[in-house]
Amino acid sequence: MNVLKPGDCIGIMGGGQLGRMLAISAAQLGLNCHIYTNQPGPACDVARDFTVAPYDDMERIEKFAQSVDVVTYEFENVPLDAAAHAQKHAPVRPGPKALEVAQDRVREKQFIEGLGLAVAPFAPVSNSEDLRAGLAKLAKPAILKTSRLGYDGKGQARIEDPGDHARAAAAFDEIGCAPSVLEARLSFVFEISVLLVRSHDGRCVYYDVPMNTHKNGILDESLVPAPLARKTVEHAHDVAKAIADALDYIGVLAVEMFYLGDDCPETLVVNEIAPRVHNSGHWTLDACSVSQFENQIRAVAGWPLGSTARHSDAVMTNLIGADVEAWPTLAAEQNACIHLYGKSQVRAGRKMGHVTHLTPRVE
Amino acid sequence: MNVLKPGDCIGIMGGGQLGRMLAISAAQLGLNCHIYTNQPGPACDVARDFTVAPYDDMERIEKFAQSVDVVTYEFENVPLDAAAHAQKHAPVRPGPKALEVAQDRVREKQFIEGLGLAVAPFAPVSNSEDLRAGLAKLAKPAILKTSRLGYDGKGQARIEDPGDHARAAAAFDEIGCAPSVLEARLSFVFEISVLLVRSHDGRCVYYDVPMNTHKNGILDESLVPAPLARKTVEHAHDVAKAIADALDYIGVLAVEMFYLGDDCPETLVVNEIAPRVHNSGHWTLDACSVSQFENQIRAVAGWPLGSTARHSDAVMTNLIGADVEAWPTLAAEQNACIHLYGKSQVRAGRKMGHVTHLTPRVE
Repeated sequence: MNVLKPGDCIGIMGGGQLGRMLAISAAQLGLNCHIYTNQPGPACDVARDFTVAPYDDMERIEKFAQSVDVVTYEFENVPLDAAAHAQKHAPVRPGPKALEVAQDRVREKQFIEGLGLAVAPFAPVSNSEDLRAGLAKLAKPAILKTSRLGYDGKGQARIEDPGDHARAAAAFDEIGCAPSVLEARLSFVFEISVLLVRSHDGRCVYYDVPMNTHKNGILDESLVPAPLARKTVEHAHDVAKAIADALDYIGVLAVEMFYLGDDCPETLVVNEIAPRVHNSGHWTLDACSVSQFENQIRAVAGWPLGSTARHSDAVMTNLIGADVEAWPTLAAEQNACIHLYGKSQVRAGRKMGHVTHLTPRVE
Repeated sequence: MNVLKPGDCIGIMGGGQLGRMLAISAAQLGLNCHIYTNQPGPACDVARDFTVAPYDDMERIEKFAQSVDVVTYEFENVPLDAAAHAQKHAPVRPGPKALEVAQDRVREKQFIEGLGLAVAPFAPVSNSEDLRAGLAKLAKPAILKTSRLGYDGKGQARIEDPGDHARAAAAFDEIGCAPSVLEARLSFVFEISVLLVRSHDGRCVYYDVPMNTHKNGILDESLVPAPLARKTVEHAHDVAKAIADALDYIGVLAVEMFYLGDDCPETLVVNEIAPRVHNSGHWTLDACSVSQFENQIRAVAGWPLGSTARHSDAVMTNLIGADVEAWPTLAAEQNACIHLYGKSQVRAGRKMGHVTHLTPRVE
């Protein structure tokens, strides 16, 4: 394991707000960043170097990887070929296996199930026969999700009645008849996520678990701490650790889970994983001494992990699309920490920033 | 007063670590930065734009000022001509008057005294006759400081015995026989600084007051809160506010003071002012929801000031020169927040970074 020293350079694939916040954290530790992105993005404005080129330009990928001491990424859809090519010239952390698993929902669910962990009942879908068979097998309201490239509710369609063949066909059309996974919709109490950080030597630390609410398939709010019993939190940590260990993971891993209730046979069911810093961990910037971004940088740099201790209670709210226009009001709120991502164009559904409201810890 | 909106650009004169931390805070608010510096520095690595040119290159200053929406600075020795020229094209905040006062120790002391505030007894010195007369007048151990361009203990010489003419001559030689000020050395309990933020409408907020200790004339440690009675803290705030109001100041103003004890006729004596974010306020990055850097950006951008509330007790320690080599140890400390400035060359006396140790607040 090479350990980066101050002045060394971290390559980040992806140029969005997560890359931006990673680059800022790297700078605070005296590390430089080189962003690789297929379009100019907000991360470029705070990094010493950036490359704008397609992810299949292997020459540029090579040059990029040669210019840095380690490569990491801020989104899970980095093409595997690009990651593999980069890895010939610099260590890639987390390793490509995490990408491979996270890029395909069917593979992801099979992998998690294979570890003996609970996932929602599901059926892989390649064609309309699969879909019909899957609906019959699940026999529940379900959600059809493309296996690949879905995010923020994109590439998803709901089917309320498993016997409604017309709706099933329409749903399959809605997601472009792409290879997909049909998932039973569970009735849960709320959603949570575990934000785990794993270092190269297998040590894991965890942030306190947030409760997450979504609007239109996009994360709206994360409240921390989630109202969970201590044993449930420990169970959630154990689930995330099993996944991270199996991936021989380095860095921040987010594991989204449904909390079904302490009286249910399965208390927690894994929804999906993200092999990167995660929107539901943005409150760590303001409520913890070391944020998820700094801990990702520490982990991939081979540094000791920083403390995940939380000094305040927090509610993180995303600013989506025109929400960002409320910035003057938010700027005047005395317990609000504002983060704007420097995106010039406001578009519906686009994450423009977030705000974290802090309050003193209640034990 | 123009109010900047996200996407607007702040020009920062000076490319050191203060500029770097300002640029990072600006980015968090969705604002871009353009650094103007006479040599490549650590601020350039985190800013969208930078210009490296001498401070007397009026053409480059003009181009710089035209490219930004407001100009601020990270060091008080920005030449007045440069600031005045920039001001023709963009507002300069804090205004040049603060620079003018802070750049000359004699002018500074006269200004503060003129407000009815306590300073150490002093005498302006232009030649050896002035020096001899000053020593006779003060009749105390004294310190001779160049009027201009001194920082971190540079340009200072001590005279223990006011009757020792040989030492006086040597001291004057040591500071290059430059125009200077002779100050009586006070016996104080400890040193403090007030970190005040003033907005364009005259509203002031204050961070909790740190107690500062120096080594070799350079700030070594700031501990917050300083062990002061509430009325002494309020008095310190009032002193700083009188100065800020008289300068019609916008931004963070640091006022260094000697605390002589609650029983002394003068409890607090002003040492010097810095019209900028200040080393003794670096702990605000980790112990407050809004740091001095963000509040400087908010003030010069015309935004509402952020909360100065402190959630933790803190000790900030500078990493000077080779101190920075302890980074692996510091990175492993669980309550340490590390900040390294990205300076490639380690030199004795050079500020390479700082570390803030946080502990829960004790009321």
